[in-house]
Amino acid sequence: MMLAAIYVTVMGIIFAKTMCHNLLMIPGPVEFTDTVLAAAGGQPMSHMDKSFAGQFGEAIELLRQVALTKTGQPFILAGSGSLGWDIFAANFIESGEHVLVINTGYFGDRFVDTFEAYNITVTQVHTTLPGTPPSLLDVESAIKAASVPFKAVTITHVDTSTGVLMDVKKVAALVRTLLPSALIVVDGVCSFGAESLFFDDWDVDFVLTASQKALGVPPGLCVVIASQRALSVLDARSTSVPSYYANLKKWLPIMRAYEAKTPAYFATPPVQLVQALQVSLLEILRGSDMAGRFAHHVEVSNYVKDKVESWGLKLVTTSREAEAHTLTAVYLPTGVTLPDLLPKVLKQGVMIGGGLHVNIAPKYFRIGHMHISSLNTSLGHIDTTLSAIQAALLETGYDVQKQMAEPEWVPRGKSSATGHDEL
Amino acid sequence: MMLAAIYVTVMGIIFAKTMCHNLLMIPGPVEFTDTVLAAAGGQPMSHMDKSFAGQFGEAIELLRQVALTKTGQPFILAGSGSLGWDIFAANFIESGEHVLVINTGYFGDRFVDTFEAYNITVTQVHTTLPGTPPSLLDVESAIKAASVPFKAVTITHVDTSTGVLMDVKKVAALVRTLLPSALIVVDGVCSFGAESLFFDDWDVDFVLTASQKALGVPPGLCVVIASQRALSVLDARSTSVPSYYANLKKWLPIMRAYEAKTPAYFATPPVQLVQALQVSLLEILRGSDMAGRFAHHVEVSNYVKDKVESWGLKLVTTSREAEAHTLTAVYLPTGVTLPDLLPKVLKQGVMIGGGLHVNIAPKYFRIGHMHISSLNTSLGHIDTTLSAIQAALLETGYDVQKQMAEPEWVPRGKSSATGHDEL
Repeated sequence: MMLAAIYVTVMGIIFAKTMCHNLLMIPGPVEFTDTVLAAAGGQPMSHMDKSFAGQFGEAIELLRQVALTKTGQPFILAGSGSLGWDIFAANFIESGEHVLVINTGYFGDRFVDTFEAYNITVTQVHTTLPGTPPSLLDVESAIKAASVPFKAVTITHVDTSTGVLMDVKKVAALVRTLLPSALIVVDGVCSFGAESLFFDDWDVDFVLTASQKALGVPPGLCVVIASQRALSVLDARSTSVPSYYANLKKWLPIMRAYEAKTPAYFATPPVQLVQALQVSLLEILRGSDMAGRFAHHVEVSNYVKDKVESWGLKLVTTSREAEAHTLTAVYLPTGVTLPDLLPKVLKQGVMIGGGLHVNIAPKYFRIGHMHISSLNTSLGHIDTTLSAIQAALLETGYDVQKQMAEPEWVPRGKSSATGHDEL
Repeated sequence: MMLAAIYVTVMGIIFAKTMCHNLLMIPGPVEFTDTVLAAAGGQPMSHMDKSFAGQFGEAIELLRQVALTKTGQPFILAGSGSLGWDIFAANFIESGEHVLVINTGYFGDRFVDTFEAYNITVTQVHTTLPGTPPSLLDVESAIKAASVPFKAVTITHVDTSTGVLMDVKKVAALVRTLLPSALIVVDGVCSFGAESLFFDDWDVDFVLTASQKALGVPPGLCVVIASQRALSVLDARSTSVPSYYANLKKWLPIMRAYEAKTPAYFATPPVQLVQALQVSLLEILRGSDMAGRFAHHVEVSNYVKDKVESWGLKLVTTSREAEAHTLTAVYLPTGVTLPDLLPKVLKQGVMIGGGLHVNIAPKYFRIGHMHISSLNTSLGHIDTTLSAIQAALLETGYDVQKQMAEPEWVPRGKSSATGHDEL
């Protein structure tokens, strides 16, 4: 009897272990809560159901709270985050007009490609060194040197390929001073809901994001928020919007109807994913105020960065001010390759990401740390991940112990100088 | 003890009843299987995970089987079905070129709007009477009268607004004879996977659909299949594709990579929905061959149509040959309104749809009958729905009994003449 009980218990543990998925610690998709997953797999419901309209409407209202805006207009569409680039280019800029792209990596390049698909003229500001953002002076010079005033300036808040953070507040203030009517655009795919963004206070005009990052919802939703200034620009177009599905003029009455808790139809929304978003937004806002959420992401990010630096590893980002708090991009030690390291980490049940920036892709790995993996410390995702990487490094022959000086759990600003001096 | 057991059983039944969702019998979203919903709410997984690549690749292969094509190229994107119109217009037709739209209702109008957004010149063939498709002669005349040969001819296979079915096989054969190199395009949103479509045999070039109809997956996926002829047209464009997200040149290497079970990245795919699609496609193809699936949809459709006609009601479609088998659109009896009828049906736990065609929207209702609700007779969805509508009609004061002559469960061609003579 006793043996049978032990057998059942052991088999139960093995079964649970087998059923567990690999801990997903890439810079999106992230780990989701069980309630969000239950909503994503929720029962069939009509997009014209009044109760769904209520949920959709609430998701729109909650998005405003997450963006810290009173007048911004959220749009929720079925699509990948990349659709957000098309939405901006197709609606707010007309063929032949000029925009400035502040390019911090792979995703800046992609935004440029999108503009070019719409025959929009692009000027870029960027540095050649991956991991380093352009300076404010570079941005100022580009604006002043332009023969035609830019209609918009785009900022990749966090470049997911390198972990570079742009100071949206400072850039927005500069642009607003030099170009009072320009649209300030934030690619918030790997930042929205985790990095500081005060849509109204910073006078931002457009932010785009995807569901599977800091919003904590399975991939499949493209979320954008447009300012009233942006909507006026849309309204004042002299040419028609060169897209049908991405035409916000079609979607605006739909979003307004759903917000009034009335179903309306343009294209069938992804019902279950919208319900999952509503659940996740409620959970996000129940957790703490947004300032608290931003601060916690900073704290965890510093902890991770201090730790990997204490192993003698070098970050891809080259200055503390330009470090994203949603991911950490780390150069591999000499002699260690991605095909060597990543499977060893995965073997321990943790998935981290490889490199993405075209110039240095094989040379670094990326750890995502956002949403519940960052906020809910009781889950232990961060330490599990760091331990798995540490063990995997040891297995490759890299002597982590030799380099280690256990960092304190303190904000990065207060950490010992040692870690940074080694860079 | 006995009483306690009875109490538990009764409470269990009440609980199950409370937890049940309303039976969704609109023309999409449809009812989904539990396994599909479990996949839609499945655990976090990276889009770059090898096992996900395997599932994505299998979904692509299975889509070919459902479309009955060996060489057609499926694409699976995050988006609503409507995105499929943009995908066709943006990739295969260039600004200023000419297309013919065979317009059978609301969704034909929408396809026209999409072409116009891309500055494409549209000629339309349509009848003014909702529920009646244009004739082959109309199509032939339009093609012969055109000053410039049409680059494509579009067919709404099933117009979801009226339940009109187009004979894709005959139209395709006619178009191929008159315009050998034209692209034959099927809007299969409310037909793909339920209505007869033999992609290769009928020499079709492009079909678009959405996940939430006869494919039995929650909304959020746009699925299109392009022929090799279509891909050659894309390859031979003289201008660039005026979209970024909808650019199939970007997606083609991604689909090929996933089909080779290798992850690749352009935009993050909706992982869980793709997994749900793979599960649903396996279930669809396990059920019967596609011909059997098509035939079963016909049989159930005839049963529903015979039944509502036996109540003295009139269908929106005006001929048997032009009746869709995925939905039934029915005129309300005199004196009965939608706001009167639909809530009475819903009260019994069944959701059916209102009218959608702009000319007659308040005058009719729509019953969806596809996928498991049509195929799995043991679920009883069809009879539950018909009983709910019958009871609701009686409640409105319409005397169904007076009109009733219980039809046999026989293919519509064999049903008694009575039902049809009353039209």
